[in-house]
Amino acid sequence: MSAETDFVAAVRGLATHSAARGLLDDAAVLEVGGVTLVLTHDMLAEGVHFLPDDSPGDVAWKLVAVNLSDLAAKGARPVGVLLGYSLGDEAWDRAFAEGLGTALRGFGIPLLGGDTVKAPRVLGLTAIGEASGPVPSRSGARPGDHLGVSGTIGDAGAGLRMLRGELGRDESLIERYRNPRPRLEAGQGLAPFVSAMMDVSDGLLIDAARMALASGVSIEIDLALVPMSDARRRMLGGDRAARLAAATAGDDYELLFAADPGDSVAILDLAERIGLSFNRIGEIVAGKGLRLTDGGEPVPLPSHLGWEHG
Amino acid sequence: MSAETDFVAAVRGLATHSAARGLLDDAAVLEVGGVTLVLTHDMLAEGVHFLPDDSPGDVAWKLVAVNLSDLAAKGARPVGVLLGYSLGDEAWDRAFAEGLGTALRGFGIPLLGGDTVKAPRVLGLTAIGEASGPVPSRSGARPGDHLGVSGTIGDAGAGLRMLRGELGRDESLIERYRNPRPRLEAGQGLAPFVSAMMDVSDGLLIDAARMALASGVSIEIDLALVPMSDARRRMLGGDRAARLAAATAGDDYELLFAADPGDSVAILDLAERIGLSFNRIGEIVAGKGLRLTDGGEPVPLPSHLGWEHG
Repeated sequence: MSAETDFVAAVRGLATHSAARGLLDDAAVLEVGGVTLVLTHDMLAEGVHFLPDDSPGDVAWKLVAVNLSDLAAKGARPVGVLLGYSLGDEAWDRAFAEGLGTALRGFGIPLLGGDTVKAPRVLGLTAIGEASGPVPSRSGARPGDHLGVSGTIGDAGAGLRMLRGELGRDESLIERYRNPRPRLEAGQGLAPFVSAMMDVSDGLLIDAARMALASGVSIEIDLALVPMSDARRRMLGGDRAARLAAATAGDDYELLFAADPGDSVAILDLAERIGLSFNRIGEIVAGKGLRLTDGGEPVPLPSHLGWEHG
Repeated sequence: MSAETDFVAAVRGLATHSAARGLLDDAAVLEVGGVTLVLTHDMLAEGVHFLPDDSPGDVAWKLVAVNLSDLAAKGARPVGVLLGYSLGDEAWDRAFAEGLGTALRGFGIPLLGGDTVKAPRVLGLTAIGEASGPVPSRSGARPGDHLGVSGTIGDAGAGLRMLRGELGRDESLIERYRNPRPRLEAGQGLAPFVSAMMDVSDGLLIDAARMALASGVSIEIDLALVPMSDARRRMLGGDRAARLAAATAGDDYELLFAADPGDSVAILDLAERIGLSFNRIGEIVAGKGLRLTDGGEPVPLPSHLGWEHG
């Protein structure tokens, strides 16, 4: 048995949905509403699926082609692709991007999204979701909205420092780093009320800056309002340096959202119903970029707002 | 500018669909029929997104969680995931699979499919398709069906040998290795007529054996009927060894299908309309496994039926 066969056997029990076809087919076939979707995810690896000397443009073409070929075998019309890409040297990346363009334009299909990484062990995952109503974007925050965040900020960052031996251990904080809980119920409950929403994955400040940029607004955050857990406060205190560290630590997987103040009551009702706190931490104003205060006093932006992977 | 920023800028022009949201959002939002789909693809890399000492189960959890968190931020209900996975050592893989199970069962969502690879540079892609009618599977081939294949077999395999310097060059064959053309039009045209269909990616014989296994039938292929291009025949001849080499070479990206003989006329009409040949190369019979003949004479199965990646 090959490693692949063993692994597929090990995960077959997870393919509980008929759409997975027992992991035996080229693609998953998903009925959603009245729509039949065909879904596939194939990878290419150097030395296995292509030669080190192959041109990047050819590799890009092949990556598109082997996936579309699975759709062809299902008689499906391609709708779009999500790309997971390992960054290499600049020239290779540029040539790959050009080749990807040639391939996608050739087939008349759009790139819908994806991810890039730079590292030896690489894992990719595609998640497919269905929304039952309007889907919040990052770009809908409007001047006058409040800025809110779910849960507490900085716990996972403290947990990571514990694992690196920089701090004494607190299992609840390590748990927040190791097993983040996506706020699915909160997200579905908040969606009708928010003008913009995103998850906080790289750090509250950098993610808020991204929301401001996408929305064409300025965001003001009051550090004194950023919610921190008692466990974190016990380990790291609550002074301004501790608040800045929490707001730039990343790995929170909380929800950051902008909402009209008129919806505050509905949002607090939701918080009570699902047992998760939502806190107002700032305001959306006209302008651009991020501004910080701490209990009303202006604070200069730190040079490090959070994590930029790649 | 980071390598990631450069790369995303380079591919932004490919994100022509409004669903891509200019590659600025956490997820793509795709309207298909009356259905709103939310699609995301995030990757984790050792040393970047998790620590080398982190437990594989925690990494699995995190991979699921960071993706579901993007759905949470869109207010979307998760429907399923496709996994792209780099195989490592056996113990790590096993622990990862267990952790993946814990995470997916915890969220009540199925694994729909995915891919595994074993190599340094790793690329992942998810393609999303829509079908307008019944979606052929691998598993529907029935005794009495004919087995058909599109185009010609073995061209890409010959092209690969040329690139390795084992043969003189023929650009048309090298092109078939480098720039395979998925048979999208053929697949959509064939879908209403076939009982089973798949693409030939790893080799005609191994892929036919997979169709036989999935369908619970036996497949008989006559090597003398396997279509080979004139270019390949000029380079490698047409004797039995050459036919066997073509049928096990892989990278063809042609369509292999089973269909009732009563649909032969419709299928040949389609071939004429789209300008691609379809050839009958065998039969579906009761039983299991693959059997080979060459102009009626039984031929033992070669030990190497095609490529098994992983």
